[in-house]
Amino acid sequence: MNQVIDYARYDRIRPIRWTGDALELLDQRKLPFVVEYLACRSSDEVAQAIHALAVRGAPAIGISAAWGAVLAAREVEATDAEAAAQALEPALQRLNAARPTAVNLAWALARMRAALLRARAGEGMDWRAALEAEARAIETEDLAANHAMGTLGASLVAPGSGVLTHCNTGSLATAGFGTALGVIRAGVAEGRIGKVYAGETRPWQQGARLTAWELLQDGIPATLIADSAAAHLMKTGAVQWVVVGADRICANGDTANKIGTYQLAIAARHHGAKFMVVAPSSTVDMDTASGDLIEIEERDPAELYGVGGQRTVAEGVPAWNPVFDVTPASLIDAIVTEKGIVQHPDTASMRALFAA
Amino acid sequence: MNQVIDYARYDRIRPIRWTGDALELLDQRKLPFVVEYLACRSSDEVAQAIHALAVRGAPAIGISAAWGAVLAAREVEATDAEAAAQALEPALQRLNAARPTAVNLAWALARMRAALLRARAGEGMDWRAALEAEARAIETEDLAANHAMGTLGASLVAPGSGVLTHCNTGSLATAGFGTALGVIRAGVAEGRIGKVYAGETRPWQQGARLTAWELLQDGIPATLIADSAAAHLMKTGAVQWVVVGADRICANGDTANKIGTYQLAIAARHHGAKFMVVAPSSTVDMDTASGDLIEIEERDPAELYGVGGQRTVAEGVPAWNPVFDVTPASLIDAIVTEKGIVQHPDTASMRALFAA
Repeated sequence: MNQVIDYARYDRIRPIRWTGDALELLDQRKLPFVVEYLACRSSDEVAQAIHALAVRGAPAIGISAAWGAVLAAREVEATDAEAAAQALEPALQRLNAARPTAVNLAWALARMRAALLRARAGEGMDWRAALEAEARAIETEDLAANHAMGTLGASLVAPGSGVLTHCNTGSLATAGFGTALGVIRAGVAEGRIGKVYAGETRPWQQGARLTAWELLQDGIPATLIADSAAAHLMKTGAVQWVVVGADRICANGDTANKIGTYQLAIAARHHGAKFMVVAPSSTVDMDTASGDLIEIEERDPAELYGVGGQRTVAEGVPAWNPVFDVTPASLIDAIVTEKGIVQHPDTASMRALFAA
Repeated sequence: MNQVIDYARYDRIRPIRWTGDALELLDQRKLPFVVEYLACRSSDEVAQAIHALAVRGAPAIGISAAWGAVLAAREVEATDAEAAAQALEPALQRLNAARPTAVNLAWALARMRAALLRARAGEGMDWRAALEAEARAIETEDLAANHAMGTLGASLVAPGSGVLTHCNTGSLATAGFGTALGVIRAGVAEGRIGKVYAGETRPWQQGARLTAWELLQDGIPATLIADSAAAHLMKTGAVQWVVVGADRICANGDTANKIGTYQLAIAARHHGAKFMVVAPSSTVDMDTASGDLIEIEERDPAELYGVGGQRTVAEGVPAWNPVFDVTPASLIDAIVTEKGIVQHPDTASMRALFAA
């Protein structure tokens, strides 16, 4: 029988709040110095918030988009669900276009469309209420999935391990608790993880700004490192597991995640450290056979020209700013989802867990 | 017979100027937006400038320290070289302590001490003039060595290659032309190098602030990338050579260089890209058998808390800030010095070129 572990003391942050007539998003562009919720009162404000990175992290983006659809429902006149489905579509497509790589965005909107379809079939059902219930379900299920993944992922980690994480995959990136940070929270709560390292994650510094802040709030002081210090850290023997999230996991286990993830996977393999991807099953895209087929989002080169508004690069310097990279399944030791763990992922082992 | 290539058009920056009574250092903390020389009028001001990174890059540090010794010579009363050697020693030791890892610093000061010894032996020789001549020789020889290394290193690069570099190893880090950037300048001049990429080099951003600026001045626009994007860039096939400098090269070829170098070497090997270390032979330390014996300088964690005075990390976050890492010789394809090239370095091949 498993000991019941109290995760709550390591889980105090909620980045997404539905007030009944607005979506409040903890504005991640202002963290860690300003803790301020951005109120979105229309679906386009939600799409804009997603695009501008006020909210980020694949699960949080999906949840936000779902609430965006709830707001969109209030912007259209439609007497029944059938008319609503048509009237809502432009707004849903604008939400969908806010970030191209995160599969959760499309997944959440597909669930909202399906809820609308069910409302259409249901006699006398309030389609707006159906959408709101679906958004709430997406959010609640995400939190439950994170708790499940935390327990599953931590079970792979031997007591006394050091872990390195990248970007922010925490409460801030989800409904709460986090994916990779959920495993770290669970691992700390269970006494398996003795030391946590976080890479800065240039150019947006999600590790430095968000992960370090978030874990500190919950009493898990993570040691910050430059992204390029990871291999040197591994050489010292301080890292047993690299634990990261995912923006999209392909049918063969190839994983798109924040730029720099791939480099960590190569370094981990070189040093005999293990590499774990943690993401809800909504991140798994069984329709994309392999990572070669993923379009990698490139953002404004200007993001490399400074930090926090402080320019550090001369005028006229070109820059290349891919937001994601793809880690091949061959470098991944375990993919952890709320449905279970895939060890040594490949097309067969992925299909065994995720085939429709 | 070799074609004579005009390197001068790609070589217009001089970071170290001796005025006759002061050492002027192009203040690298203020680049790329302010081009300003810092005048050092005492040996302690030079030591302080080295410690505070106003001047950086192993060769430039050595040259600066030599001129620092010239300034020290004006601060002591000594009627002959023997008395001078004793009187100067405290200042030389303060210069030597300004940065712990760069072997060029100790090497340059050893040359200055040797010059003093020769002046002691020489009848009626002006020991202050001897020191000044030695500092000038160290500087002039560095420039000549860089031109030689440029030609040698570029000869390894096939036409049409893409190269990735790290940190700043250019004119700014040397008397001029640069070490790794000297190879890049020569390779561009010879039409071998088609595309140059530069990693930002957190936390000091030497790549973003200095390399990108320096190459742009000379008409070689290098594309800036986040350090963590290097492996993804290699996966696209854009990089045939990673070309870096060195702070210390051990007797077996293990190389200490800016943090992040080791990670690039691992990624290069993973992708079949080649890895070249370029440094003057003064960087070679045949008394240190291997990289395990190198003490890695760690700097203030606060350097990771922001960029250019803009804080991005919450109060209370711990950080680990090693300045260098060690790339094992097994990951290095070529070490290029002005004395020649060591391919596939190991203790035997290193000894063949560098044995005293």
